[in-house]
Amino acid sequence: MAAVNSPIKVLLVGTGALGSIYAWRLDVSGKAHVTTVCRSNYEAVKKDGFRINSLAFGDEVYRPHNVVRTVAEAVADGEIYDFVIVCTKALPNLVDSSDIIAPAVRDPRTIIMLIQNGIGIEGPYAARYPNNPIVSTVAYLDSSQPSSGTINHGVVTLLDMGLFSPTTANYNVGSVAARVEELGEMWRDNGVHVLISEDIQKSRWAKLVWNASFNTVSVVSGGNDTRQMLDSAECKALIRSLMVEIIKAGETVTGSKLVYLGGFEKPDDIINNTDMLPKPVTPSMLMDFRAKRPMEHAVILRNPIELAKKHGVEVPHLETVYALLTMVENRYLTQSKL
Amino acid sequence: MAAVNSPIKVLLVGTGALGSIYAWRLDVSGKAHVTTVCRSNYEAVKKDGFRINSLAFGDEVYRPHNVVRTVAEAVADGEIYDFVIVCTKALPNLVDSSDIIAPAVRDPRTIIMLIQNGIGIEGPYAARYPNNPIVSTVAYLDSSQPSSGTINHGVVTLLDMGLFSPTTANYNVGSVAARVEELGEMWRDNGVHVLISEDIQKSRWAKLVWNASFNTVSVVSGGNDTRQMLDSAECKALIRSLMVEIIKAGETVTGSKLVYLGGFEKPDDIINNTDMLPKPVTPSMLMDFRAKRPMEHAVILRNPIELAKKHGVEVPHLETVYALLTMVENRYLTQSKL
Repeated sequence: MAAVNSPIKVLLVGTGALGSIYAWRLDVSGKAHVTTVCRSNYEAVKKDGFRINSLAFGDEVYRPHNVVRTVAEAVADGEIYDFVIVCTKALPNLVDSSDIIAPAVRDPRTIIMLIQNGIGIEGPYAARYPNNPIVSTVAYLDSSQPSSGTINHGVVTLLDMGLFSPTTANYNVGSVAARVEELGEMWRDNGVHVLISEDIQKSRWAKLVWNASFNTVSVVSGGNDTRQMLDSAECKALIRSLMVEIIKAGETVTGSKLVYLGGFEKPDDIINNTDMLPKPVTPSMLMDFRAKRPMEHAVILRNPIELAKKHGVEVPHLETVYALLTMVENRYLTQSKL
Repeated sequence: MAAVNSPIKVLLVGTGALGSIYAWRLDVSGKAHVTTVCRSNYEAVKKDGFRINSLAFGDEVYRPHNVVRTVAEAVADGEIYDFVIVCTKALPNLVDSSDIIAPAVRDPRTIIMLIQNGIGIEGPYAARYPNNPIVSTVAYLDSSQPSSGTINHGVVTLLDMGLFSPTTANYNVGSVAARVEELGEMWRDNGVHVLISEDIQKSRWAKLVWNASFNTVSVVSGGNDTRQMLDSAECKALIRSLMVEIIKAGETVTGSKLVYLGGFEKPDDIINNTDMLPKPVTPSMLMDFRAKRPMEHAVILRNPIELAKKHGVEVPHLETVYALLTMVENRYLTQSKL
């Protein structure tokens, strides 16, 4: 029996290199209407849509169902969204991003999906919207936005998602899970690799193994790509030490082994895998550093460090890198350059 | 009974902001003839001498007994030196400075005095000149060389010196000690505060408490003076952690409490003392970084870390900062800038 459903209404906040691909793969399903909140690229996208060049899906101009500048604009006509998907960078030290979506979370059925890196990203949303389901999602995606509205994408599309703290939920977990599954199915139908995880925190910590090491060190070492980092024995040893600390912290905090999507579980394997890539990787944090943008150190380092210490895990290498990273950022965000 | 002695012959290698002051205070005694090996400032000093502005000793043009470009030139006329004093930066990872003085160490009575920072500086000299006494010396001096041959000096003059490994010496320790005391007395007569220490390593480690923390962090944090470092709670905590590790390592390696000349023994006291200085301090390593000069990380971090680990002391904060510092240096010494 084919049910005739009205389209799922999705509001996607932060439609850059990452958000645009996931918005596109939903919108093309025809089963979802995606309204994209565009900030820096609004003019370009409103006028010409997203010019997407994707190895996986081909080249296409994607015109979202609706393009707006702000969340307030997205709800000005009284629209109620089934999903609010947050794809902004996680910068809780600078912005309470739970604040930004407030106008669109008027209905307790609205599901908040956070597609962001790091640990502890759900806290501000859970505190502010205790009755709304939160889907914590980890993305692996190889895309970039070389100019406003132009998106380059490779072949990776993975979304790994799970309900945040569903055991204490004020909602029917089964029905929410069904709606998330429905959304996931739309993505899957359009080529996105979607996983639904029981304990998403294990995936979050696993992704952190790379992000809290290569990403952060690339900046505090003075601006180095993966090749340059691994060419220094001391730096390689440091990256390994950071990974060991994250794994120990993650396993202690989550109470079990982490779930590694790449198939590499040991620091040396993760390092060797990076070492053998055909081209050096310029970590995203280094790109932020070079562009003098804020870095995601609160969710990549600060929150994991705090959780680790709360659970009695010593993380001296992480603490050192965190202190230095915030200082480095402070110099370019608030002070004159050297 | 007043003995009529011929002047002590001193060769001083590395006559910059530090070396020039100590050369001057010896040379003015009339009891020593100081030959200064000048590199970058040779032309200026040969022509006009050192133009010294000293709060402690007044303003004076100091013309050394002899000014040469190289150690070879200093011995070209067959001169035998009683003391060879090395005041160069300690960069054993780049230069074997024991090599540089070789032409002047032809006589087993020649005493080698090293006025340098860090740990393990004596090793290459002891290996190469097993029969020569080595006087390991720590200097506290507030001087700078704003332009070639112009030296500004404040009021601090301290030299803390001790024989390196005298228990295994191939020479008469008593007679060497007497000659060192004689040299020290000449300095004292001309206003230099000279201490002779039984175990100079305790002083070296104590000086490292500041150098391995504030100095190194000033660079890897992106270029910050003491005020900027202490204004960040995380950075202050990091500096404290580095100090704790150095003190533990130093106490374990030397087998006893360190000897702090400043009177401050605890990390918090050392930090507070720095915090209360009327002006922020720009650490010397940060000045090297800004001028794209090599940094003394091998003797300030690498050697202490190796010794610590050999003695079973964990030093994760120091290791992290060392890995990053060498990467940062590598970028400006060998690679293009960001």
